[in-house]
Amino acid sequence: MLDIEKKLSKLSLKLPSAPTPAANYLPYVITNKLLFISGQISADKNGLIKGVIGQNMSVEDGYRAAQNCGLSLLAQLNAAISGDFQKFKRVIRIAGFVNATNTFEDHPKVVNGVSDLMVSVFGENGKHMRIALGSTLPLGVAVEVEGLFELN
Amino acid sequence: MLDIEKKLSKLSLKLPSAPTPAANYLPYVITNKLLFISGQISADKNGLIKGVIGQNMSVEDGYRAAQNCGLSLLAQLNAAISGDFQKFKRVIRIAGFVNATNTFEDHPKVVNGVSDLMVSVFGENGKHMRIALGSTLPLGVAVEVEGLFELN
Amino acid sequence: MLDIEKKLSKLSLKLPSAPTPAANYLPYVITNKLLFISGQISADKNGLIKGVIGQNMSVEDGYRAAQNCGLSLLAQLNAAISGDFQKFKRVIRIAGFVNATNTFEDHPKVVNGVSDLMVSVFGENGKHMRIALGSTLPLGVAVEVEGLFELN
Repeated sequence: MLDIEKKLSKLSLKLPSAPTPAANYLPYVITNKLLFISGQISADKNGLIKGVIGQNMSVEDGYRAAQNCGLSLLAQLNAAISGDFQKFKRVIRIAGFVNATNTFEDHPKVVNGVSDLMVSVFGENGKHMRIALGSTLPLGVAVEVEGLFELN
Repeated sequence: MLDIEKKLSKLSLKLPSAPTPAANYLPYVITNKLLFISGQISADKNGLIKGVIGQNMSVEDGYRAAQNCGLSLLAQLNAAISGDFQKFKRVIRIAGFVNATNTFEDHPKVVNGVSDLMVSVFGENGKHMRIALGSTLPLGVAVEVEGLFELN
Repeated sequence: MLDIEKKLSKLSLKLPSAPTPAANYLPYVITNKLLFISGQISADKNGLIKGVIGQNMSVEDGYRAAQNCGLSLLAQLNAAISGDFQKFKRVIRIAGFVNATNTFEDHPKVVNGVSDLMVSVFGENGKHMRIALGSTLPLGVAVEVEGLFELN
């Protein structure tokens, strides 16, 4: 059985607490073994990761912001299954929204921050389909990521 | 059993007719007790609610636009279940797209217009996960909202 | 049983090879007879279809870009069901993202490029719900389209 804290620790990462929604909605909904997780906005232990990629943030900064969104998705997943990863089956869908300049083209490299994390943590079961888009975002954050997971 | 007209009337709101799609698509699709509703664009009895939040519309204007998108979602739900709310189980997912300036940060407050409506009408069963993004939108409307509902 | 190549040939169209994902993700995921297909970016035999609609591309250009995204969705579907269209049940959801100017309003006409294709190929089973938004897009492409299909 997966020990997510240990797995993340090997990647020099740490599971954050599951973020509280910014407004009147739930962090996740489970139906028919599908776990729908709300858009997670980029943040780390210092607070929100704000900025515009291609303007005052690099692709590497964006990658790290997306990775942090991925950590928040994992925190919500962990809460949803009460830490019992035998209940986790696979990642289905990742939707990555990148706050970037109009001429920015490297959204896929940014969203790899979350995709690489899922594959590093879950291996084959972490592989997923995805969309990657440019958007302006709540609170001026750099990246927002929505997730859909399958449970056992 | 829920009388949606009466419930909305108590909130001083009124169920609109279910809007006709703006192009070659269906207003909704039902599969496996999941009701997927097409993006509803902001409109009221006077027509489309157009504008850019943070430029020529306030957060409050945006909230009302989002609420109107929510009313359209309810109208599509009502049509999908032929007004029989025993067939309604819960709201799963709300995706709110806000036409705002690049520096706007209050998308969550705007999208609360639809989230608050769902909770006011359905209580616990109206609670949902969601995403909120900034986007440019069809026909220059202020808000577009997509919905996913679960049926009994 | 549907011969997709023949059907497309009657429309003077051709099934492309299923595009390889641009980064670390899968082209599609199947779960519970739902086929989730990753965002397909506009491309034809000459390569990526790049541009901004309303700036250096017309609505008609955008329609053709969206149609090409639709052909890529069909190529992924074809790969997912190994060409056996008895396994195809219906199109559920199309999400069309249009790289357009801030004042552009005709996203629905652009996204009809993919919706019309689905209905031309599959008839009633090609009808779907959808969202259409303005977004900036990976690699500067004009259109990106995500698809959700139901299988038998």
